[in-house]
Amino acid sequence: MSEQTHLNTTEERVAAGAAADPWYSLYADRTLGMKQSEVRSLFSVVNRPEVVSLAGGMPNIAGLPLDFLAELHARMVRDRGAKVLQYGSGQGELPMREMICDVMRPDGIEADPENIVVTTGSQQALDLISQILVNPGDVILAEAPSYVGALGTFRAYEADVRHVEMDRDGLVPEKLEEMIATVRAEGKPIKFLYTIPNFHNPGGMCLSEERRPQIVEICRREHVLIVEDNPYGLLGFDGDPATAMRTLNPEGVVYLGSFSKTFAPGYRIGWALCPTEFTRRLVLANESATLCPTTFGQFAVASYLQEYDWYQQVKEYREVYHARGQAIQEALEEYLPELEWTKPTGGFYTWVKLPEGINAKDMLERAVANGVAYVSGTAFYADGKTGADHVRLSFCYPTPEDIKEGVRRLAKTIGEEKELLGLA
Amino acid sequence: MSEQTHLNTTEERVAAGAAADPWYSLYADRTLGMKQSEVRSLFSVVNRPEVVSLAGGMPNIAGLPLDFLAELHARMVRDRGAKVLQYGSGQGELPMREMICDVMRPDGIEADPENIVVTTGSQQALDLISQILVNPGDVILAEAPSYVGALGTFRAYEADVRHVEMDRDGLVPEKLEEMIATVRAEGKPIKFLYTIPNFHNPGGMCLSEERRPQIVEICRREHVLIVEDNPYGLLGFDGDPATAMRTLNPEGVVYLGSFSKTFAPGYRIGWALCPTEFTRRLVLANESATLCPTTFGQFAVASYLQEYDWYQQVKEYREVYHARGQAIQEALEEYLPELEWTKPTGGFYTWVKLPEGINAKDMLERAVANGVAYVSGTAFYADGKTGADHVRLSFCYPTPEDIKEGVRRLAKTIGEEKELLGLA
Repeated sequence: MSEQTHLNTTEERVAAGAAADPWYSLYADRTLGMKQSEVRSLFSVVNRPEVVSLAGGMPNIAGLPLDFLAELHARMVRDRGAKVLQYGSGQGELPMREMICDVMRPDGIEADPENIVVTTGSQQALDLISQILVNPGDVILAEAPSYVGALGTFRAYEADVRHVEMDRDGLVPEKLEEMIATVRAEGKPIKFLYTIPNFHNPGGMCLSEERRPQIVEICRREHVLIVEDNPYGLLGFDGDPATAMRTLNPEGVVYLGSFSKTFAPGYRIGWALCPTEFTRRLVLANESATLCPTTFGQFAVASYLQEYDWYQQVKEYREVYHARGQAIQEALEEYLPELEWTKPTGGFYTWVKLPEGINAKDMLERAVANGVAYVSGTAFYADGKTGADHVRLSFCYPTPEDIKEGVRRLAKTIGEEKELLGLA
Repeated sequence: MSEQTHLNTTEERVAAGAAADPWYSLYADRTLGMKQSEVRSLFSVVNRPEVVSLAGGMPNIAGLPLDFLAELHARMVRDRGAKVLQYGSGQGELPMREMICDVMRPDGIEADPENIVVTTGSQQALDLISQILVNPGDVILAEAPSYVGALGTFRAYEADVRHVEMDRDGLVPEKLEEMIATVRAEGKPIKFLYTIPNFHNPGGMCLSEERRPQIVEICRREHVLIVEDNPYGLLGFDGDPATAMRTLNPEGVVYLGSFSKTFAPGYRIGWALCPTEFTRRLVLANESATLCPTTFGQFAVASYLQEYDWYQQVKEYREVYHARGQAIQEALEEYLPELEWTKPTGGFYTWVKLPEGINAKDMLERAVANGVAYVSGTAFYADGKTGADHVRLSFCYPTPEDIKEGVRRLAKTIGEEKELLGLA
């Protein structure tokens, strides 16, 4: 782990930075708040072969049709090289945006390619939306807990993130209303609600069908823009995607999608489906950030979607993750039956509540020594402190056998930690 | 051109925006300053087949070895698909960073891959460097004129850009010293000097060998970081690249490179070679913006560099641009001998001074009606007003015959404009 994770106060970091870095005094205010995420810090540990990683969110792409893709790439370069290797549009290439409309159709979305902006992964869409909307100190509403990568980006724009409670059915409408009222009473502007309604990262749960119109209606009434992040929506174990909130109020929702989980992350192609006027802002921000997203990657993904039965590939991914989701469920039942966790019904994650008195962050070193890695719940709260009573376990990448062994090691670690703390 | 270019004051834009866009009141302060660049606004015009475009900066990639590349891509996907299609490192893949060291060697740079950060084009490096360094109102020094894409990004971070005079030998050291003193007297922080020393965009000139150590020394003394942007350095018509300023003070210069002009822009792969401690900041900002640059694109570019005689390809590009640079030089001598322009010795551009009294922005509509497009000099100044006495002509993309015809049409347009204004 980097030295940074041990330096908690701004003062400590200023002192450490100033000593080592001649340019430290020139950094912008926002830079001092940026730190390595707990997830990223784990990467070196996670890559050790003896450690079972239940930490990372890498998709399992072993099942991709590589021979087909090899031929497709070769043909694309040979026949359309001068186009696919050239600069493109800041909004994204039209064939890509048209195919994105197809990909959103299972969610019930009927979109116009004119309202789509292609970005360098949906992470960049999050970054640019924050750039467009957030002045330092502005409020962003997010679930409690929320996606670590979004929180890092919000921090870079010096947002004041307020977490809103979830239960098994996802974000709680009454809690959302309460939080909006609280923030409004403070006189602070609310810039948007950031939400992951399907197979939440890290929570694992889905927003119920009943609550979707309720959340949309609250936000419409309160003039709060919704940023609906949906990387996992197609990856429910039993198929049928839920109703996208975007369908309930197209001019009130920015919908984010990504090919990183349903196809492959290596091209870095994501998108935002925007309210009409917002689209133009996002295109300008996109051009300012990168001129245009990768033309090559866009044509590769668009050609794959056009020429391959991509929905069949999605179904195969579902089976891969279903088997792994079942494995972690069974392992938790076997080795840690006394704990509570989100029963996986899709996506990549389950959120596990630790026994009273155990701190996920403190326990991590012991877990890694025992050969298993997880992400401490603290990574998923803006303050970096809340959430120490939970861990996020990812079941997307390891084999079912490794998942079982990983959970066994986690149980052993928890047992040791309880004993050490006199909790046994 | 977009409606935006006709709305000059913030008040006008607020009024127009608020009427059309329900989310307008939520935009961050920085967003109100972002507007479509004059170059981007021209895109629709430029693509009309009857117009000779001397406006765009699209590289001429017709000469790329597409059969070789097709086979290389196919092999890469077939043999290493699970790696090249997966997420990668926020700093960029090591094989890519190692090959980037090779590509900088002709500039005299001996770099450590540890100090390189791969970005989504060098545009994104500019964006992230601004994010790391610039608080609203901070000063960035840039040449007069400067690259339109950089100015747009600096505007997004609400920087106060101060232009420093150039002559035929590039940035004038005494003028740089004067500007630093002026800004310091105002009590404003200077965050960096942004400079394009080789085949300047839009100026066309090179910073002389004599001045390079002078500029570096002034910045070292004044503790001003240098951002050395070098997309065209290898594309001098007579070979031999100039001394990179980076070599003169490695801890004082962030050097930006790109494969967009020396190979192909479609992958969106650029890089920053950083002072040691700055590297870590840039990696964090990169992760926050996009998680990682495209793994696929990096492996494609790295494989090309490893397996192809890339420097021979650079030499072929030089010949392509040399022929076009000569064509524009000859056409200007033939049709507009009374004007002054930068004699092209490399790169993509020449900077032409118009006859006294002619306004490049006002003349553009007539030029397009006459079948030629250029970029008004006003695009290359932060205030959007200075520079109306110049046009940038790009000679990179059209054929030599089209270039000649384009300049003939420009001469006709200038003649008509002079007559109309009573200047003839």
